[in-house]
Amino acid sequence: MLFRQLFDAETSTYTYLLADEATREAALIDPVLEQVERDLRLVEELGLKLTRVLETHVHADHVTGAGVLRERTGATVVASARGAPCVSRKVGHGDVVRLGGLELHVLETPGHTDDSLSYLCEGRLFTGDALLIRGTGRTDFQNGDAGQLHDSITRHLFTLPEETAVYPGHDYAGHAMSTIGEEKRHNPRLARRTRESFIAFMKGRQLPPPKKLDVAVPANRACGLGKPLLQT
Amino acid sequence: MLFRQLFDAETSTYTYLLADEATREAALIDPVLEQVERDLRLVEELGLKLTRVLETHVHADHVTGAGVLRERTGATVVASARGAPCVSRKVGHGDVVRLGGLELHVLETPGHTDDSLSYLCEGRLFTGDALLIRGTGRTDFQNGDAGQLHDSITRHLFTLPEETAVYPGHDYAGHAMSTIGEEKRHNPRLARRTRESFIAFMKGRQLPPPKKLDVAVPANRACGLGKPLLQT
Repeated sequence: MLFRQLFDAETSTYTYLLADEATREAALIDPVLEQVERDLRLVEELGLKLTRVLETHVHADHVTGAGVLRERTGATVVASARGAPCVSRKVGHGDVVRLGGLELHVLETPGHTDDSLSYLCEGRLFTGDALLIRGTGRTDFQNGDAGQLHDSITRHLFTLPEETAVYPGHDYAGHAMSTIGEEKRHNPRLARRTRESFIAFMKGRQLPPPKKLDVAVPANRACGLGKPLLQT
Repeated sequence: MLFRQLFDAETSTYTYLLADEATREAALIDPVLEQVERDLRLVEELGLKLTRVLETHVHADHVTGAGVLRERTGATVVASARGAPCVSRKVGHGDVVRLGGLELHVLETPGHTDDSLSYLCEGRLFTGDALLIRGTGRTDFQNGDAGQLHDSITRHLFTLPEETAVYPGHDYAGHAMSTIGEEKRHNPRLARRTRESFIAFMKGRQLPPPKKLDVAVPANRACGLGKPLLQT
């Protein structure tokens, strides 16, 4: 499996490139609109064909490159059935997205948003904004729910093998990856804390809304193509 | 082998943590002074003991955390014999730095600076500012020499196996890694260019000096401890 981690410094967003080294089929997870040219150049230089774009959720802090990538490459845009109406394939818990001989297993991990998904592929877990490194996504907008997020993390992610590599949607401290075992032991919001204590902590936070919330959410419901579709 | 890539967003600097999973001995390559607490916390959380700090060169764009890390942990600071006088162990081409059962092989790769080293460990090559992803370090200060840099890259790095993973000292476009094969084919300064053309390109660049040059170089000659030592 070919794997690359990419970073958008303006929004501290991680994008992931995965590919089957035999068939050269490639997927991007959570591409950023402003980085589409960079990402397409890398796909081309590596001799890959982009066939899948996967979203972990409707983002509030950056605009997705999914729609432009679909237009440019014909890739299928995959996301939650609860998320953006623009996507090509809507998936839920237990679904499998095939990429050549690779399988990306879909886990529903709501709580940051109600459409949040994680994807598991060959020991690598892409957690979007559900589980971050030594942190979690916030739960105070887009139908976020702290109790639901705690359940998603503890029941669906922390039950995976300890050595599972965790690749989040963002990091703000310069960490690139973690593992399930590490987060169980050292995530200060989750280790040695009850569900109630987690909910109280999340409710007690006083955060300004994401800078791009008003722009990003409608744009991302249209896969970043700038003409928001009405939910049907 | 335990491996982590860490990033300092202010200076776009990569730091690398390597460890022998059996003995728990760990090394940091190119730590940044402002990130010492983050790095020590990670070392502790992973149950490691920091025994080596390796510098690829005397940096001009950030201050190293090496001296503070040595004071805090007793780690040996390793760098080129041509570099900072403060280091604990001075190495050159062909030397091996042992880390438990791991071996870091030293390659002299001057040209960005005259003390530039690369380190090779189990298929991962840490290139400092000699070879960057689709770029190279600059050659217009600190005894930089474009012809020498071209020789270092083409004779010592591009002769390694194509699948060797390249981990640079910086990236400014959000790339985390590359491979020797990729850089041979796609690095615009090196692929399908002669040595003379590379030298002419590097000489033709009109870049302002690094922002921290006047502060960082003397600080780094003292391993970041703020009391520059005179060269003996």
